[in-house]
Amino acid sequence: MNTAELAELAAQLRVDSVRASAAAGSGHPTSSMSAADLMAVLLGRHLRYDFERPEHPANDRFVLSKGHASPLLYAAYKAAGAVEDGELLTFRKLGSRLEGHPTPRRLPWVETATGSLGQGLPVGVGIALSGKRLERTDYRVWVLCGDSELAEGSVWEAAEHAGYEQLDNLITIVDVNRLGQRGPTRHGHDLDAYARRFRAFGWHAVETDGHDIEKIDEAYREALATTGQPVVVLARTLKGRGVAAAEDHEGLHGKPLPHPEEAVAELGGPRDVHVRVGEPPAAAALRDRTIEAVLLPHYDVGDEVATRDAFGAALAALGTARGDVVALDGEVGDSTRTEAFAKAHPERFFECYIAEQQLVACSVGMAARGWLPYASTFAAFLTRAHDFVRMASISGAGINLVGSHAGVAIGQDGPSQMGLEDLGMFRGVYGSTVLYPCDANQTARLVAAMAGLDGIRYLRTSRGATPVIYGPGEEFPVGGSRTLRTSDEDRVSVIAAGVTVPEALAAADRLAEDGIRVRVIDLYSVKPVDTETLRRAADETGCLLTVEDHRPEGGLGDAVAEAFADGRPVPRLVRLAVRTMPGSAAPDEQLHAAGIDAVGIVNAVKLLAQEKATG
Amino acid sequence: MNTAELAELAAQLRVDSVRASAAAGSGHPTSSMSAADLMAVLLGRHLRYDFERPEHPANDRFVLSKGHASPLLYAAYKAAGAVEDGELLTFRKLGSRLEGHPTPRRLPWVETATGSLGQGLPVGVGIALSGKRLERTDYRVWVLCGDSELAEGSVWEAAEHAGYEQLDNLITIVDVNRLGQRGPTRHGHDLDAYARRFRAFGWHAVETDGHDIEKIDEAYREALATTGQPVVVLARTLKGRGVAAAEDHEGLHGKPLPHPEEAVAELGGPRDVHVRVGEPPAAAALRDRTIEAVLLPHYDVGDEVATRDAFGAALAALGTARGDVVALDGEVGDSTRTEAFAKAHPERFFECYIAEQQLVACSVGMAARGWLPYASTFAAFLTRAHDFVRMASISGAGINLVGSHAGVAIGQDGPSQMGLEDLGMFRGVYGSTVLYPCDANQTARLVAAMAGLDGIRYLRTSRGATPVIYGPGEEFPVGGSRTLRTSDEDRVSVIAAGVTVPEALAAADRLAEDGIRVRVIDLYSVKPVDTETLRRAADETGCLLTVEDHRPEGGLGDAVAEAFADGRPVPRLVRLAVRTMPGSAAPDEQLHAAGIDAVGIVNAVKLLAQEKATG
Repeated sequence: MNTAELAELAAQLRVDSVRASAAAGSGHPTSSMSAADLMAVLLGRHLRYDFERPEHPANDRFVLSKGHASPLLYAAYKAAGAVEDGELLTFRKLGSRLEGHPTPRRLPWVETATGSLGQGLPVGVGIALSGKRLERTDYRVWVLCGDSELAEGSVWEAAEHAGYEQLDNLITIVDVNRLGQRGPTRHGHDLDAYARRFRAFGWHAVETDGHDIEKIDEAYREALATTGQPVVVLARTLKGRGVAAAEDHEGLHGKPLPHPEEAVAELGGPRDVHVRVGEPPAAAALRDRTIEAVLLPHYDVGDEVATRDAFGAALAALGTARGDVVALDGEVGDSTRTEAFAKAHPERFFECYIAEQQLVACSVGMAARGWLPYASTFAAFLTRAHDFVRMASISGAGINLVGSHAGVAIGQDGPSQMGLEDLGMFRGVYGSTVLYPCDANQTARLVAAMAGLDGIRYLRTSRGATPVIYGPGEEFPVGGSRTLRTSDEDRVSVIAAGVTVPEALAAADRLAEDGIRVRVIDLYSVKPVDTETLRRAADETGCLLTVEDHRPEGGLGDAVAEAFADGRPVPRLVRLAVRTMPGSAAPDEQLHAAGIDAVGIVNAVKLLAQEKATG
Repeated sequence: MNTAELAELAAQLRVDSVRASAAAGSGHPTSSMSAADLMAVLLGRHLRYDFERPEHPANDRFVLSKGHASPLLYAAYKAAGAVEDGELLTFRKLGSRLEGHPTPRRLPWVETATGSLGQGLPVGVGIALSGKRLERTDYRVWVLCGDSELAEGSVWEAAEHAGYEQLDNLITIVDVNRLGQRGPTRHGHDLDAYARRFRAFGWHAVETDGHDIEKIDEAYREALATTGQPVVVLARTLKGRGVAAAEDHEGLHGKPLPHPEEAVAELGGPRDVHVRVGEPPAAAALRDRTIEAVLLPHYDVGDEVATRDAFGAALAALGTARGDVVALDGEVGDSTRTEAFAKAHPERFFECYIAEQQLVACSVGMAARGWLPYASTFAAFLTRAHDFVRMASISGAGINLVGSHAGVAIGQDGPSQMGLEDLGMFRGVYGSTVLYPCDANQTARLVAAMAGLDGIRYLRTSRGATPVIYGPGEEFPVGGSRTLRTSDEDRVSVIAAGVTVPEALAAADRLAEDGIRVRVIDLYSVKPVDTETLRRAADETGCLLTVEDHRPEGGLGDAVAEAFADGRPVPRLVRLAVRTMPGSAAPDEQLHAAGIDAVGIVNAVKLLAQEKATG
């Protein structure tokens, strides 16, 4: 397309952004208008993308990191012939695919859900890494960012990652329109301020006038010609560009233009420009992603093995059986035990250093490219990536997250290192699965089972060794549980998971000596929860006692309560959990101080049995 | 102290780090040893601190961002005469103040809990901002960072914040020992790589040899002489410095030296060096922090007002009454309504731009200096700061966090902007308070009440207007609730909060027309929860129906279940919550689609009433 045609295309993108937002009665036309020229040149001259085959492996990838500029994106889809004008005007309405912020659940051309700022670039880095190191296909990843979002630390985690990995297949365009939501950004139109930062992180930075078609083209060509470095194109733009009453004006963020019809007229009226987006090159040969039978590690009953060790060994084995498994770690692979995978499959291991947001974002990017990521760090530090996990669930991303060093059982390191909120955080994520194994064989099975699930899968592992209580051939279906002690005389059901399972078994033995029988349930599947077994236990024993190495909120106790959420009566439910702020102490001292060891369970059961007897 | 004396002090810090870790059987001696010379020069020549008066307003502030190097910190306390050698050897033992990672709950000289990397510097920025813009005292803030933690995005949020605010009272020392936990860092000993990054963010960077006493001193003097910019001192060091078997060796992170006695001998044996730390200058006059009666805004019953509007107005009023109130926002003050405070009290308003980790960290730093921070952004984006909130609770920090745009009720913007996990996240935080008002007068009261609480206080506000149902003089104690409809014939108790309260009231009216009486409870205090009222409702109505604009996990339903956590039977508990992934739609359409509007409540109550009648 020549300059005049691209200018027409850009005008149409602006017009359609104004129209869509006006039809919706909400939305972000001004943030779309600033980036319209950038988008027009990309569409008309550089993007290689087959809209009819979004799965085409050689397609370029486009991520709208400034997801609120969705009108621009949808206007671009229209110009490319992917959506009709009628659909464009359903923007933000009930049932429309064209949501306020784009999501891949509904639109096949969207790589990742955006709308929480500073996430598109981190995910784009994951996609670019996949292209470069896994797929070895020379697609390019184009990420369109706003300037405001560069204040997010996650952007600099991503910048560091991309610079270090020399991702020259990644081109980030920053629409520097100088205005954030409530007013000017820190750096206004000082493009140099941003260029200095990106250059310091190993990027090539190009500054340009974001409203000059040929200068934009020149900047993109410079970006495409750059090798050995990721590139940022910093474009000076004006918010609301093209409509005098809006251009560079404060107070017009995130709302339709006050006089949309006049604005459309000022922009030259509606057009019917169609852009023929460049075709992707013939696809490179895909890597072998065949799946063989998994030869999981086996552990002997009675041995003492840490579940984190079993996780590492199982992950390495899974990686042998499946060529699509990738592992990522937050620079603690010697603790999480992903080092076993790194050793066995170095080409599919990604060291993300101490940057948990990037760890999760990179996993989301790789999942978008069809890989099966397992990302690990301490359970406590996954809270750092909570917003990324939340957005991943909106994307419908299939990722496996593994948090080690759960609970007070880690011992001396103290509360900063203890995952005590992780079960609650992950249970609260839409469509998630939450697993918490107590022994090595169970862990191995669950690591393999996670691969076949949808959505966010979370596995919680423990630092210290626990006894192997299950044989290597046993099955642990997701949504199931294991009843480890049961009799007709059970007076209480003790429901445990992870490190509290051996404590519950020890308590059961001691109680049996006193003639008190208790049922013991290993609730390894915290979400979904084994409703049937729990209800039967309630019916048969009358009392449920949950014991968890976690805060009382959000974890095992709440998961058990959920089994009765259909309104049936819950006879009695008592929760043992970590209710104080721990300090440093040995693991057994910690469990005792929190009241979640065998002693605590025995005491609670006796109290309950007594209450039941008397009342 | 002269060079030789400082070298002796440094040797003692190493020896004591080795001894403390050996006595504990765990800990981080090698990460302490790399920074011992840096600490010795700081203690012996530059720090101005009265260990007997940690509250002295002119004291310098020291933050150990690399919190795992706690042996070094405790060894420094010993050298300064603040702890005895006997206590030093209680390191990491049950009951000891000397925890694996330092916390201010137990040690008066610790400014903030560290141990989750990349948090000390962000909090230090908050302290430095307080010194410069609030206290106007010329103390210095010294932050000792590790090199590994510079991969955390939060460090660059803090760097951006400090650079922009020209915090020349902030000196960050980076112990560049080139080794992370599992191996080399990205940049090894390339000090320039870090210098470029900090300089790009507006800092003055000084590179030095971290094991040369006089060069360190020179670097500190250059730092102290720098004006108009924060300074980073990048020190080339060796992990395990001073013990040949450990120095610069991989595989020795986070464990005692294998032969501690030999190591101590190699370091020249134990010493008894005492350092006289410099005195702080005479304290400047403190700002007036008197508290006057709060003249809260009043709203008329029947008006429609958004709770976020009431929050903004109440916060401004609180700021007028109390000189210690400060407000911070994540560049959405026009949405959260902190703009009202910013207008009334610009000198106590802090724009943190789109950097939620920094928003919370800065609040923690200001709270450490005695201020009463209220920090706001969208509820959804507070998940970005989950790990900072977790660490703030370990610090025992008293901060107020306010999340706006809660739930599907925001409407068209879609799921990326909807706070649907926030109640769960905050309920799971140790010692937290969680409040969720439904009307403007209630909001105003709760904003004022938060000021008097300990720990993390969270207030959830709504985007759209809701009817004012309470008079301006009414009281809303934390831990209370309001029963809005009650009769002797109540067949179900509907428990709502925030936007679901008007829906519950509408449902009650419709049900009454059908002859079905329901109790309606406004559970504005989600944590602590009004156990007594809920139990009475259970006793009297038999059925509890919770209705919340939140995921089913972690929120109102779980809070209600908690009221029965002492093991008493819960008759029936049914939860209406957001169980699907919303798209874009109008607010009323969203509430309806999620089944949490009046229609959904009516249907659920009828079903329950029927079941109860038949079953």
